[in-house]
Amino acid sequence: MRKVLAFDLGGTKIAFGVVAEDGSVLKSDRVETVASKGPAQAIERAVEGAKKLLQELNLKPIDLLGIGIASPGPLDISRGCVDGSPNLPGWSGYSIEGEISKAFGLPARIDNDANAAALGEYLFGAGRGKRNLVYVTISTGIGGGVIVDGKLMRGANGNAAELGHLTLDIKGPPCPCGGNGCYEVMASGTAIARRTREALAAGASSKILTLAGSVDAVTTHHVLQALAEKDALAVKIWDETTEYLGRGLAVIINTFNPEMIVVGGGVTAAGDVLFTPMRTKALKYAFPRLAAVCTIVPAGLGGDVGVVGAAACAFEAAQKN
Amino acid sequence: MRKVLAFDLGGTKIAFGVVAEDGSVLKSDRVETVASKGPAQAIERAVEGAKKLLQELNLKPIDLLGIGIASPGPLDISRGCVDGSPNLPGWSGYSIEGEISKAFGLPARIDNDANAAALGEYLFGAGRGKRNLVYVTISTGIGGGVIVDGKLMRGANGNAAELGHLTLDIKGPPCPCGGNGCYEVMASGTAIARRTREALAAGASSKILTLAGSVDAVTTHHVLQALAEKDALAVKIWDETTEYLGRGLAVIINTFNPEMIVVGGGVTAAGDVLFTPMRTKALKYAFPRLAAVCTIVPAGLGGDVGVVGAAACAFEAAQKN
Repeated sequence: MRKVLAFDLGGTKIAFGVVAEDGSVLKSDRVETVASKGPAQAIERAVEGAKKLLQELNLKPIDLLGIGIASPGPLDISRGCVDGSPNLPGWSGYSIEGEISKAFGLPARIDNDANAAALGEYLFGAGRGKRNLVYVTISTGIGGGVIVDGKLMRGANGNAAELGHLTLDIKGPPCPCGGNGCYEVMASGTAIARRTREALAAGASSKILTLAGSVDAVTTHHVLQALAEKDALAVKIWDETTEYLGRGLAVIINTFNPEMIVVGGGVTAAGDVLFTPMRTKALKYAFPRLAAVCTIVPAGLGGDVGVVGAAACAFEAAQKN
Repeated sequence: MRKVLAFDLGGTKIAFGVVAEDGSVLKSDRVETVASKGPAQAIERAVEGAKKLLQELNLKPIDLLGIGIASPGPLDISRGCVDGSPNLPGWSGYSIEGEISKAFGLPARIDNDANAAALGEYLFGAGRGKRNLVYVTISTGIGGGVIVDGKLMRGANGNAAELGHLTLDIKGPPCPCGGNGCYEVMASGTAIARRTREALAAGASSKILTLAGSVDAVTTHHVLQALAEKDALAVKIWDETTEYLGRGLAVIINTFNPEMIVVGGGVTAAGDVLFTPMRTKALKYAFPRLAAVCTIVPAGLGGDVGVVGAAACAFEAAQKN
């Protein structure tokens, strides 16, 4: 089976692994990023770690098709680097793609992490065989990637599709992006916690406070715990959350007319308590003709999504060459 | 030069013409739709008219590459028909594509009118050579079409991209689609007139009322006339309009990362008084890295967009075969 090397860059760690063309991770490992010390030291240690992996697998670079790299955006894909990424401050302009490519003498392809995950879910995960697919991750923020007729939509400079910045409410809370009431400012994990803290600070009484210990310590996890006990505030916050999430998915359905929306990210650990109302509301607000052909399903790759997504970018690039 | 036959279906008329591969319309004509009398009579008369055109041009079907059809959506492209189109009531299920194809013995391709216009602007209009392009039409409603890496994004059943139903304000006015505060319910020509009438009905004094004669007669045209005289209500309405339009274009930039947005439709007759503030606001709300590579320009095809867009669908289909 053909194999690629894959790197999943993050602000705190870099995961890497060798991935086979069926999407299976043959071996993987990780190093700390120590992002504040700059890109060279981090990439150097990741490359060393990956070389060790290859040795352990008895592989040489020549046995690999190429290298895929998933990175936090925004990116400048023409130069193979990040461009003002808040998670990798000071890394702009350093050609991550070029340095990793050189270290192994192999072609490398960088894509932003949400786009890599979309490609991963399309080639190896829940979206296999779906030509028109949207991947949405609901986590600290909300991100996304879109497969149009079997190809990743990269846009003019690799920065499509910022689905976390679909607007829900132009009179809503300001978003660091400069907009207001963006999808992620209304419905991400961070937003769930913020809205709950605001309600508690405004005097709402709730089990959430007991569970969290203090207003500042509230997370989505506490909201879900209280929801299981039918706590009134938790029910209200969760209803709003699935309403916002459903509204956003309806916009995604109307915009892309996908066969499937794959939803991943930390918040989806909530399971059916999330998916059931979110799906109902999404299909309610979308055009019936478009809703009828779209299923909304949990991501299939789980914790491997970073490395497998990066690998998917390498397989896609290899197919083009 | 290669040529195609093109049909532009509308609720009141059907335009048709012979279009050359440089996008020039060699000859065109139109018939009334009389939509209420059903599709067969309308398509029959349009086909007759088109056959007459071919005779006048001394052309036979064999001299043509194929046929393109632009139609109001929603469509079921797998069956070549409209599917619940409000502009063509009772037409659902009648294979417009199949009947026209049969009448000339040529391959035919149907697409919704906004998607056809997007392809027309990409192949022959303002967007020539731009691989990633979004077309937005601001008229009675708001519609759109998206070119991703040189190809029209059709989606799972041909109904991408309903850009008029991007959300701006989930607490805003209800939209017939089932959502609230959709782009077209906030910023279309109809919305401009509605918001103005609401302000007048609430007691605002304005030259608009004198110009229109009555509250019910107000249109975007009167707002623009009063705006030229710096009428306070017209200034307020127009500021809101360009704010809404700019916010929506920012979402489009963040979502598709296009090189260009081509804006057409009746409201764009306003010219710079529309484009200058709309562009400024769009670029203000979009991510800088994405805004930097995106220009926002008026449509290039003018009144021919319907027939030339339909022709573009035929040329694209022929290229694939």
